[in-house]
Formats: sequence, C-alpha cells, structure tokens
Amino acid sequence: MTDSSFSTPAIPAIPAIPTVSDLYDAPLVARLQHVLDNKTKPLGALGRLEALALRIGAILGSEQPVLEAPQMLVCAGDHGLAARGVSAYPSDVTWQMVENFLAGGAAVSVLARQHGLALTVVDCGVRRDFQPRPGLVSRRIAAGTADASAGPAMTAAQCAQAIANGREVVRALPGNALLLGEMGIGNSSSAALLLARLGALHLDDCIGIGTGLDAAGLARKREVLGEVLALHAAAAAPLEALAAFGGFEIATLVGAVLQAAEERRVIVVDGFIASSAVLVAQALQPMVVQRCVAAHCSAEPGHVLLLARLGLDPLLNLELRLGEGSGGALAWPLLESACRILREMASFEAAGVSRKDA
Amino acid sequence: MTDSSFSTPAIPAIPAIPTVSDLYDAPLVARLQHVLDNKTKPLGALGRLEALALRIGAILGSEQPVLEAPQMLVCAGDHGLAARGVSAYPSDVTWQMVENFLAGGAAVSVLARQHGLALTVVDCGVRRDFQPRPGLVSRRIAAGTADASAGPAMTAAQCAQAIANGREVVRALPGNALLLGEMGIGNSSSAALLLARLGALHLDDCIGIGTGLDAAGLARKREVLGEVLALHAAAAAPLEALAAFGGFEIATLVGAVLQAAEERRVIVVDGFIASSAVLVAQALQPMVVQRCVAAHCSAEPGHVLLLARLGLDPLLNLELRLGEGSGGALAWPLLESACRILREMASFEAAGVSRKDA
Repeated sequence: MTDSSFSTPAIPAIPAIPTVSDLYDAPLVARLQHVLDNKTKPLGALGRLEALALRIGAILGSEQPVLEAPQMLVCAGDHGLAARGVSAYPSDVTWQMVENFLAGGAAVSVLARQHGLALTVVDCGVRRDFQPRPGLVSRRIAAGTADASAGPAMTAAQCAQAIANGREVVRALPGNALLLGEMGIGNSSSAALLLARLGALHLDDCIGIGTGLDAAGLARKREVLGEVLALHAAAAAPLEALAAFGGFEIATLVGAVLQAAEERRVIVVDGFIASSAVLVAQALQPMVVQRCVAAHCSAEPGHVLLLARLGLDPLLNLELRLGEGSGGALAWPLLESACRILREMASFEAAGVSRKDA
Repeated sequence: MTDSSFSTPAIPAIPAIPTVSDLYDAPLVARLQHVLDNKTKPLGALGRLEALALRIGAILGSEQPVLEAPQMLVCAGDHGLAARGVSAYPSDVTWQMVENFLAGGAAVSVLARQHGLALTVVDCGVRRDFQPRPGLVSRRIAAGTADASAGPAMTAAQCAQAIANGREVVRALPGNALLLGEMGIGNSSSAALLLARLGALHLDDCIGIGTGLDAAGLARKREVLGEVLALHAAAAAPLEALAAFGGFEIATLVGAVLQAAEERRVIVVDGFIASSAVLVAQALQPMVVQRCVAAHCSAEPGHVLLLARLGLDPLLNLELRLGEGSGGALAWPLLESACRILREMASFEAAGVSRKDA
C-alpha cells in the first residue's frame, strides 16, 4: 500500500529544478583533444587519464582547468528499515561514525586531510541529536526515515525538503568540485531498491552484503527487500521511488548533485549509495551525469550495474566497500593529475621532440 | 650466433649480489592485520588498499609506516635494434625526452612535481652527450646498445657494469621508496624478448604496439623480434638474456631493484619495461618481488602476463602506455593513503564505535 500523496503531481518543490543543459560544446572538446594530442607523448598514451582531462576541461569550460577548493560532502541519515535486520551493524553506528568523521578518525577524514579536501558532514536525519560544532551542518528531516517495509520511508514533503536541503548546502559551499559521501546504516538497501526500480533490474542482482552480512543475513536482506519492492510497486517515478525507499541522506545528495550540476562543478561519485543518488538525479535531469566522474567500482555487486546505467567508467577498482566518500577521496589525485597534464605538460613544438612521422 | 662470453660463468660482477631474504615475518604481518581489522570500518572494507598497507608495513618493518623522500629514478638508454624499425618513433626521441624530463615538461616531470617525488634521470647509454646539470646522472655504458639482431645488445662486462651502476645510483639516494621509470626508443622490444625468454611464453603474446606502431609496423616488429629470439636461442640464463636483448637502461634498473630490495625500500613498479627489469631481478633473487608494488597494468598486452609472472596485482588500470614512471607517479598517492590508514585511522575502541557483533 503506497501513501496516497505519491499520486502525481506529488512533490511540490521539484518543478523548481532548472534544466541542466548539455555542456559538451563541440569546439571546446575539439580544442581539448588537440591540446592533449600535442603533448609530448604518443597519441593516447595516457589512456583514461586523457578522457578524464577532457571531461574536467569540458565541465569547467577551460583548456587549462584548475580544481579549486574541493568539497567533500558526507550526508548522514538513519533508516527505519534497519530494524528489520538488513545490515550487519546496528543503527547506532551512524551517529558514532558521524562523531568519528568530526573527530578526524574515519577513513574519509584521513583521506580528506591527505588531499586537502574540505570535509562537511550533514546530519540529514540521524537518530540522535548532535551538539553544533565546526564541520557539522544540521539539516535534519526526522530522527531516521520510517520503516519502508510498512509504508513509504518518507513523505513527499520530507523528500522535497531533503532535496532542497542538498541544493542549499551546496550553494553555500565554495569551489568548483564536489565529492559525494554518505553514512547511514541500512542505506545499501535503499540503493538496491532504487537501482532495481529505476534501472528496471532484477532485485537480486542489486543486493550485496553491504557492510558485511553473512549468508543468513544476506538471505534475510533479500527477503525483506523483496517485500519492500512489492509493497511500493506503484512507486515508479524517480521521486516516488526515492520517497518510498529512502533515505534522507540519499535525497539530500540528490539535491546536492542537481545543484552542483547546475553550477558546473565537477562531481566525484563514490560508491554504490552515492551512485544511487546520481541515478535519481539523472532520472530527473539526464545531463547531470556529464558533470560526474566515477571514482571507483565498489565490491558491492550492484555498483557495476549502476555505473553502467549511468554510463560512467570508474577510475579505481580496489574492491572497496566502505562508502563515506572514501573512494572519491582516493581517486581525487587522479583528477588533479589530469588537470596538470593539460596545464603543465610540454607540447612537441615547445619541447623540440620529434613526432612519430618525423 | 651468440657471443662466446655468454657461456657460464660469464658475468663477473654478479656473484657480489647479497641474498635478498624473505621479509614477511609472521608476527609483524599478524600485528599489521590486527591493526587493520580494528580500524573503524567493516572488516576488509578498504579492499586492496588494506593489502597494500600490509605490504608496505612489512617492507618497512613497521605498524606505523612512513614513506620518506620518495625517489623517481628514470633510466634512459638507446637501442641498436631501433634501426630495424621496431618503434613508431626515431631514436632521437630518447635524448629529446631526457631534455624534456629535465626541463620539467614531460608527464613524469609534471606528476613527480605534483606528488613531491624527487626526479633523477640517469643517462645509461643514450646516443647523444648531455651537458652536466642538476637532476641528470651520467652512467653511460656506450652510445646505445649494439643491434640485437646482429649479435648481443651488450657484452657481459657492459651488462655487469650497468647493473653495478644501478646499485650505486640507488645507494646514493635518500629515502625508503624507489619509483622505477625508463625511457628508450625500442625498449618495449627488449622487454618483450626478456618476457618471452625468462617467462617461457610465446613471443607473439609478449609483443604490442609500444609507442604506437600501425599494423604494418607491428608485423615488422614481430618478424624482427622472432629473428632476434632465434639468434640468441642459447641465452637462457637471466643475465645472458639481458645482455643479448638489452638495454642499458633495463640493466641499470635491474641493479637499482636489487639494491633497493637489499635496503628494504618500497619499490614502485611502473609499466611493461620497468616490470621487465623486475623480472630479471626476480630471476636472480626471487625475494625482490616482496618489496615491489605494481602501480598499474599497461595497455601493452605483455604487461598483464608479466605481472602475473611476478605475482603482482596492479593498483591502477587506466590503459596507460607511456612508461617514464608515469604510472608509478599516478599510483603514488595510494601508497601514501595506505600508510595514513595505518597511522591515522581510529580503532573501534578509541572512537567508541559499535562492532558488528554489538
């Protein structure tokens, strides 16, 4: 049984999303390709780093792109569905990890520090109140979503508010690059459900062990998610599906992606959950994916399917399954390298190096 | 017809190589694994970054490894075989690229600067004299190797001298990490021949387009290398093969690898040619590979076979085919990240985060 508020037109704030246009203007792409082809190396010898350079140049509209003040945005929220035992960890780990992010001890904290990424943690709806402090932004919708196996995880209004929050948070951040991160016990379930519904895939192909379920736990997760998908069979449109399956942190990331895309920031996509937010954003505005760089392919089996759906080719494949934005942070230096190749490498002419046909 | 000096015992300087011992002492590895397992993340959630952290910890003998003063060593040399048209570029590109390295305009120069890697270029035998200058070390054996299709690329004495040079150059460098780089028009032919001989593989599987041969060029390369392999059919031992096929830069890198391994430096292996030097070093001292990290898997088709032979799992797979050490430089931040994870991430206890079984 789905909430009646999900019949169209349901979500009032969404029509305000401006159209994200095609940014690949052919002359700029041709100039970028020419610059790359004239660098002192065999044609295409830097492989996928050249495609990355071309994409960043196209997003930032420059043959000499400079990544400025990169922002790691970690959105956190709890999931009512976690009570059904779909995760290997208890819900309390969400707030404990928020504390860990802020204290600088989590993987994403360490990696953000290494690469000079400003870290902002957004409480999108964690089941615990936090004291205000530097680095923490409070955009709480509620103390966790509702149990998606009993009804929609959030109302239409909550979903719209979370998206608006994400837009507003990004609008206030400096820089021209946004790295997506998340924390929320149970959120690989939301991502699996979103992928199955919006990607029209078999649910079983979208489900993995998340933070480390054993075989019995994985079987339980499959069973519960099967129920949830069936319960919300009518939630076919992107925002209906998002509201049905949750969570607040994913919805906030959807808003963040839409805003960053509109501002032509480079969006660095992390793992399965962050990618599920891009999937929803893509369903709303297909061109957002042009602004995205896929940092890595996760060990979570649905991720490779999700990336294929987005048409994104991941930079790393290190069998990560952590989330938080950790994969985005690990891949970040490759984006810097791609820009430096464009800006700093010598051309054949400038270096006096013979060409292939010399 | 092989040079008679390659009958055993041929290479006088080689017996002086000290034995490189097994460095994986079980208690240290167990302690490293325990440290990783107690970090605030699901077990194994950092995937191959955890294996990397364990390897670096084992090499440096520390649960809190610190990479110090990393050295990018680019060895350059010319190949007599290049006259047979086995490369898409003329031999002059070797010295021109050495100038480009020193001027800071090559890919490896840009990437080394990005990551604070000290760059040393070694003239191991380029067909052009260089004026002395900062960053250039002269360890010339001759103005390029002899044509391997007419006889051995180098004499036993030259081979031994190049290896001794590599050892001596590394001995003089500070730090505890060595990144291998190379430049030498024609050297993907040497690497293919070394892999075919020492790896007992079909030559055709070891040959690729190098810097960008077209179909006719690739056919010519296959034909010429077939001749060379047959000519040196008797060169079966590692150093005989190295002397037969060249080049000076590969032999110098063999010495560098042996020295770095003996000193327990972390050795970052770049692409196909740098890996071929590790293959020779491994044949002499199997334990050297324990000190190695494979930066990436090149688009050159022999590289995946070579890495499998070494038992190394590459960090990146970006379809690079440049050499120079560019892949090693691109992967470098991942080594830093692995060390920081060990040093800076909080444990479950310290951060007050619940465990899976809580």
